[in-house]
Amino acid sequence: MKKYEKILDIAKRRGIFYPSAEIYGGISGFYDYGPVGARIKRNIENLIRKAYLIDEYGNFTIFEIECPTLGVEDIWKASGHVQNFTDFIVECKNCKEPYRADHLIEENLKISCDGMNKEQLQELIKNNNLRCKKCGGELGEVYNFSLMFRTEIAPGKNKRTGYLRPETAQSTYIGFKRLWEIARKKLPFGVIQIGKSYRNEISPRQYIIRLREFTQAEIEFFVDPDDKFEYLNFDGKPIKIIDKHDKIYEISIKEAYNEGIIKNRAIAYFLQKSLNLFVKMGINYERLQLRQHKDTERAFYSKDTWDVEFMSELGRIEMVGIADRGSYDLTQHHNYSKESMEIFSNNKKFIPNVIEVAYGIDRPVYCVVESCFVEEKDENNNERIYFKFPPEISPYVCVFPLMEKDKLPEKAKEVIEFLKKAEIYPFYDISGSIGRRYARADEIGVYYAITIDYDTLKDDTVTVRFRDTKEQIRVKIEELEKFIK
Amino acid sequence: MKKYEKILDIAKRRGIFYPSAEIYGGISGFYDYGPVGARIKRNIENLIRKAYLIDEYGNFTIFEIECPTLGVEDIWKASGHVQNFTDFIVECKNCKEPYRADHLIEENLKISCDGMNKEQLQELIKNNNLRCKKCGGELGEVYNFSLMFRTEIAPGKNKRTGYLRPETAQSTYIGFKRLWEIARKKLPFGVIQIGKSYRNEISPRQYIIRLREFTQAEIEFFVDPDDKFEYLNFDGKPIKIIDKHDKIYEISIKEAYNEGIIKNRAIAYFLQKSLNLFVKMGINYERLQLRQHKDTERAFYSKDTWDVEFMSELGRIEMVGIADRGSYDLTQHHNYSKESMEIFSNNKKFIPNVIEVAYGIDRPVYCVVESCFVEEKDENNNERIYFKFPPEISPYVCVFPLMEKDKLPEKAKEVIEFLKKAEIYPFYDISGSIGRRYARADEIGVYYAITIDYDTLKDDTVTVRFRDTKEQIRVKIEELEKFIK
Repeated sequence: MKKYEKILDIAKRRGIFYPSAEIYGGISGFYDYGPVGARIKRNIENLIRKAYLIDEYGNFTIFEIECPTLGVEDIWKASGHVQNFTDFIVECKNCKEPYRADHLIEENLKISCDGMNKEQLQELIKNNNLRCKKCGGELGEVYNFSLMFRTEIAPGKNKRTGYLRPETAQSTYIGFKRLWEIARKKLPFGVIQIGKSYRNEISPRQYIIRLREFTQAEIEFFVDPDDKFEYLNFDGKPIKIIDKHDKIYEISIKEAYNEGIIKNRAIAYFLQKSLNLFVKMGINYERLQLRQHKDTERAFYSKDTWDVEFMSELGRIEMVGIADRGSYDLTQHHNYSKESMEIFSNNKKFIPNVIEVAYGIDRPVYCVVESCFVEEKDENNNERIYFKFPPEISPYVCVFPLMEKDKLPEKAKEVIEFLKKAEIYPFYDISGSIGRRYARADEIGVYYAITIDYDTLKDDTVTVRFRDTKEQIRVKIEELEKFIK
Repeated sequence: MKKYEKILDIAKRRGIFYPSAEIYGGISGFYDYGPVGARIKRNIENLIRKAYLIDEYGNFTIFEIECPTLGVEDIWKASGHVQNFTDFIVECKNCKEPYRADHLIEENLKISCDGMNKEQLQELIKNNNLRCKKCGGELGEVYNFSLMFRTEIAPGKNKRTGYLRPETAQSTYIGFKRLWEIARKKLPFGVIQIGKSYRNEISPRQYIIRLREFTQAEIEFFVDPDDKFEYLNFDGKPIKIIDKHDKIYEISIKEAYNEGIIKNRAIAYFLQKSLNLFVKMGINYERLQLRQHKDTERAFYSKDTWDVEFMSELGRIEMVGIADRGSYDLTQHHNYSKESMEIFSNNKKFIPNVIEVAYGIDRPVYCVVESCFVEEKDENNNERIYFKFPPEISPYVCVFPLMEKDKLPEKAKEVIEFLKKAEIYPFYDISGSIGRRYARADEIGVYYAITIDYDTLKDDTVTVRFRDTKEQIRVKIEELEKFIK
C-alpha cells in the first residue's frame, strides 16, 4: 500500500473525508468531510480568515463578504468565462470515454501542453497515435468543453440562464462600487470571500485535490496602479523558488524581491504570508516551493502570477495562486454592464488594479493530513498511526472524566462549557480506559486531552496530556484557555 | 418610510446586505452580505454550532459534517424531491407573468391554501375570477413547477443529471452508515450541517427572508424509536404557543410538555434550545411564538412538526422547524439504493428515526437586524440610528488609537493581535475624532470600542466604551479577553 492510499483509507474510517453519495455509486469530484475533516477544514478557513482580516491595521483593511454561488449569465459573459472557461476534450470513438486532451498527452508523451490550442493538441494525438486508455480505441476530434455548471433561474418568462461560479472573484468584482463606498473611498482595500466554487472538470482526480465542488478563500486586493506597496514588509527563511525561465533559487522571499526575481512587492508580501500560514497549518516547509507562471501558461491580462506549491505524495499541488490581474476584471464589467467602475482617488480618475490571492481550502486539508501523518512503533513495539496536527488544526480538545461516577462527569461538563466559551471545541469521551481514550484521540490528531480526576474535585486542576510527547501536566481550569491558546 | 424600508436602506449603505449583481439589474432571490452582514452571519452560524456541538456530553454527541451542495439525481428521486418538491404555478395568458398559485389566492381571498391540490387551486382562481396583478389579464392553467435547480455533471457518456440540494438533510442521510460507524454505533447521535441550499422559488420575496440561494443549519438527530428522551431537560419562561387546532397558550415549554400539548420530549427540548439561542442573538422574546403544523400542512410521513416564529414587520417568519420525521428518509434511501440503512442496537434490528431541527441562517440575520434596530434622540436632540446587537453578534470590536503618532498605532497593533488570538475580530479605525469614530462604530452595532491613549503606553490599560450606555471604563490589556467574553 502506498502512503497516500494508507492515508485515504484512514481518512475514510476516521471521518476525515470520503467520497459523497457512496450508496448511489458516488460520482467523481464530490467528497464529504466527516466530523474530523469538517473541523480541520473550519480551522484552516479560520486561520486564513484571521490572517487576512484587518491585518495591516492603519495601512488598509480587508473585509469579508459573502456572495451567492449562483449568478446570471451576464456576469460570466463579461468575465469571459462563458467564452473561454473551457478545457479541450477528446472522446474514444469506440467506447466513448472522454479524456482531457492535454492531460492525456502529458501523461503519454511527458511533455507540457501549456498554452496549446485545439489544433496543436489534435496534431499531437494524431502524430503519436494516442489511443483510449480503457479500450485502446481510436480517439475522435478535440473539442471545447465548458467547465461551468449551467442551470435555469426563475420560471416562465422570467427564466434566465445561470451558472454556478467557477471562482468567488467575479462575485466580488461586480459589487466593487458598493464596497468602495463601504471602504470609505480609500485605496488600497481588500475583500476576502470564503465559499464554494464549482468546475465541471472533465476528469476530476486525486481525491480532494481536483474536485468539481470545492471551497476557495480568495482575496481581491484593490490597489492604485501607481502604488509601490512600500508599507508592506516581509521576511522569512530561504525557500525554493522557480522563476518563469525554470531558473531555481534557494533564497528568502525578501532576497528574491531585492534581486528583482519577484518584481511586485505586494506579490512578495502575499507569498510570504502564505508560507507562514501553511507552516502554521502543519505543512512541511521543506516540501513547499514558489513557482512563477511561464508566459505561455499565464492568462493574457495577468502581468505576473506566482504559486506556492506543495510536493505531495500525489505530485505537485498548487496551494495558492497570487496574480497581478491589472484592471482587467473591473474593466470587463465596466464595459459590459455600462456601470462605471472608475473611482476618483489621489487626484486621478481610474479603474483600480487587483492583486488576487486565491487559496483552495480542500488542497490544504489534504496536504495538512499528508504532512501530519505519522507511522511509528510505540514503546511496546506496536504500530502507532496518528496525525501530528498542530494545536490550531487539531479537531478538538478531548475531555475525559476518569470515571462515570462521583460527580466527575458533572465536573467535566463545567470544563466543556468553559472551553466552548473560549471558542475551543471540546469532545467528550467516557467509554473505555483512559489509555484507550488517549489512543483514540491520538488517531484523529487531537493535540490536547484533558482528564478530570479526583484531584480536580479538590483543587480545580486537570491533567493535560500532549499527544506528541505523551507528557502530562496539571493545569488550573481557569488557566486552560490561556494555556491552550 | 416604513420601518423595514428604513432598515433595508441602512442595510445597503452600511454593508449589511443588499441585492446581488446590481450592475446587471439583479435577480430576485439572491443577496450579498457586505462586511458587516458577513460578520453577523458568521456569528449566528457560530452560536448555533457551539450550542449544538457536543452539547449533551455523555448522553450523545452531535458532529458537524460538510457535504457537497450538488448531487446526482438518484438522491432526489429517493427522497421524493424530483417528484414532489414543486409549487403550483399559474401564468397570465396575456403578459405571461408567472405567479405562485397559492400565494395569489391567499393574497386575494385571505384564506389558507395549505394542503390544496392543483384542481382545488384552479377552481378557486376560476370561481373568483382572479386576474393578473400586473396587467389584469386572464390566468391560464395551474401547473407544477420544480423548485430544484437542475444541471448536468461530467462530459460525454459520463454525463449525469444533478440537482443543487434544496436542503442539507438528504446529503446527511445518504452518508448515514458511515456516520454510524464514526459515532461508534451508539444511538442517539446527531449530525449538523451548516451550508448552502437552493430553491428555485417562483416569486422570492421579502429580501433575505425567501431567497433562491440560502444558508441552513440542519441537525439530524438519529434516535431509537423506543427512546423516551428522559435524559433531556429543559425549562424556561412562558411563551405563546399555538397548537394545530389553533388553540393558544401562554405557558412554558416545560408546562406544555407536562400537559401533553407538546408530546415529544425531544421536540420540546429543541424548541427550548432554539428559544434560548434566538434570545442570545438579540431577537425580541415577546415577538417569538411556537406554532404546531396543522395536519393539512404537515408532510404525510411526519408525526409532528413545530416551528418557532418571529412576528416581524414583514409578517410571520419561520425561524426554525423541528420535526419528528420517523424513519421515512432513511427508509427511502434504504429502498431506493438497495444499501441497508438498518442497524443493530438495543437487541433489535431497525432503521433509526430522525428528529430534524432546521434553522435558516438568513432569516435570523434579518430578524436580529430588525430586533436590534434603534431610532432615538441623543442628548443634543439629534437623531441617532444604531443597532443594539448583543456582544455575541456585534460585527467587530473596534480599536482606536487616540492619535496617529507617539507609538499609539503600534500599541493598537499589539491589542489587535491579542484580540485575534482570542478569536475576537478587531476593526481598526484612525480617521476623524474619537467622537466621530464612536458614532461610526455605533452605526454598525459595535458593542465594545477600545481606545488606546497615552495612559495605555504607561500602564497597559485601555478605555473600553459601551455602545448602549456610552459608559467608559479602564481595563488592563491582558484582561480584555476575559472582560469581553
